[in-house]
Amino acid sequence: MRTILLPEIKEILRTSSVEALLHVIEAGFVLYAQKKVIVPPVGHLSFAHPPGDVHIKYGYIIGDDYYVIKIASGFYDNPLSGLPSGNGMMLLFHQKTGELLCTLLDEGHLTDIRTALAGAVVAKYLAPSQVTSIGIVGTGVQARLQLNYLREITSCRKVMVWGRRNDALELFKQEPMLHDFAITTTTDIKELTNQSNLIVTCTASRKALFTVDDVRTGTHITALGADAEGKQELDPHLMEKSDILIADSIDQCVDHGDFGYAVRANLIPSSKIMTLGDVVSGKGPRRTSDRQLTIADLTGVAIQDIQITKFVYENSLRH
Amino acid sequence: MRTILLPEIKEILRTSSVEALLHVIEAGFVLYAQKKVIVPPVGHLSFAHPPGDVHIKYGYIIGDDYYVIKIASGFYDNPLSGLPSGNGMMLLFHQKTGELLCTLLDEGHLTDIRTALAGAVVAKYLAPSQVTSIGIVGTGVQARLQLNYLREITSCRKVMVWGRRNDALELFKQEPMLHDFAITTTTDIKELTNQSNLIVTCTASRKALFTVDDVRTGTHITALGADAEGKQELDPHLMEKSDILIADSIDQCVDHGDFGYAVRANLIPSSKIMTLGDVVSGKGPRRTSDRQLTIADLTGVAIQDIQITKFVYENSLRH
Repeated sequence: MRTILLPEIKEILRTSSVEALLHVIEAGFVLYAQKKVIVPPVGHLSFAHPPGDVHIKYGYIIGDDYYVIKIASGFYDNPLSGLPSGNGMMLLFHQKTGELLCTLLDEGHLTDIRTALAGAVVAKYLAPSQVTSIGIVGTGVQARLQLNYLREITSCRKVMVWGRRNDALELFKQEPMLHDFAITTTTDIKELTNQSNLIVTCTASRKALFTVDDVRTGTHITALGADAEGKQELDPHLMEKSDILIADSIDQCVDHGDFGYAVRANLIPSSKIMTLGDVVSGKGPRRTSDRQLTIADLTGVAIQDIQITKFVYENSLRH
Repeated sequence: MRTILLPEIKEILRTSSVEALLHVIEAGFVLYAQKKVIVPPVGHLSFAHPPGDVHIKYGYIIGDDYYVIKIASGFYDNPLSGLPSGNGMMLLFHQKTGELLCTLLDEGHLTDIRTALAGAVVAKYLAPSQVTSIGIVGTGVQARLQLNYLREITSCRKVMVWGRRNDALELFKQEPMLHDFAITTTTDIKELTNQSNLIVTCTASRKALFTVDDVRTGTHITALGADAEGKQELDPHLMEKSDILIADSIDQCVDHGDFGYAVRANLIPSSKIMTLGDVVSGKGPRRTSDRQLTIADLTGVAIQDIQITKFVYENSLRH
């Protein structure tokens, strides 16, 4: 049984081609859309004092060599004692024998990476042919990673970042990983929506951040902040106006993603939503004009965890 | 983060007093009966080719320092390639921060031990005051462990073991751990029930192994083989005749234990079943006469996993 710690995981990711990473995530979404992936309901533990949540996500590709169990936690008072609030690990088992092959103590990093890669996959198929400016809504780890992987998808290096706090915006601008982007910042979201035609929202917002009227014709929006009940980033009328609606998991996005608000308000039928795996495989819709409004809602599915974990494990064997 | 392998786990258990082990399991059942333990529904993965099952059991004592996630698997073709069919591991986390404190790669041993300890706890409160002969129904690992821990509960060393195969019975007799017992064997279950007034059934049977008429007055029976739908060891009329019925978890025993057959046949109301934790605490019934028939049904609950894992972890820190 191998144990892989975060520094080795980061090194494997750093020395891998982004193309290869995008490929495993794309392949995962296709298998998921083809119903070749078993993903049981998420297990959950919650704690009151101090507040904490644990999620157990698990599943496998039918006929594959592996199954994966992810244990992720958020303990929100941890920063008070100098610990990160989020934590996580991946366990990779042999699907034919049940043997534990590898424990990846990734501290949540692989979840961040697979989420960022899903954003890049979406942009690959739905971004306008000419991205004039990228709009990043949010200043956290995920906001940075989204931009990092968009580098592979578009040649656009003009970026506007929105955040509530100037100090967070300043830190974002100084991020070494993003040194080749020309980043401007704003605390006025309309300044961002006026300028950008590829927008990624990655906040913990609980209400819409901008309205349908703020968004330019031909924009693509990827929303990935709303991953639990009560969270919201998008005006539901955006979904009504959108030409293409893509979900990583239709069930999850309707249940607790941004698309759910539009479905519950009867602004769209859930049948208008297509799944990302079908977009990748060509079975689903892709952008056909630079006047279309397209929106993707990402809530995160276990197939992404399975694929990134397999990738790191198999590459670790070659090191 | 510590990793404890099976040899160290066995050494910690070997050098611990059985009294201390019984105490932690008893305390766990009391907390469980007092509803101070959170045990969400069990997670499950199943595989068709080759056949395999994975169960994820998890939970915590409210206000405790830890939470525990157990991953246990059965891959039934493993013996064909020289591997054990059962496997398992325990993960112990800090309840205040989510940090992984310890991985116990116990290969399922801690589940065997906590199950055997539950049998001993039951016998402590429900066995006749004079055990004339112990009857062990089954010849597997759990049958041996049950007898091993009954050593602490009764001075009786006279044992009859029932099994279907003479070679398995012979191996049971030669078990070094049980050298101080006077063991006779039989393939005729009535020979066992005629002689024994403390019976433990630990088989994978799918039908009753003996009838209500086979059992002597004043006998106690602990049944722990039926832990999933379709499994059965006891004649449901035994439950109808029994003076005291004890379950480790009333819900589980009615859902998929031996007691369920009697409830579904309307031979007993489920309200006749009391919980083991209440027996331990004194709130529930205990044996008051040597003419009573008493039965305990054990299906296994996560509080046992939590308690045995904590015990091994805390003792490992002292080593």
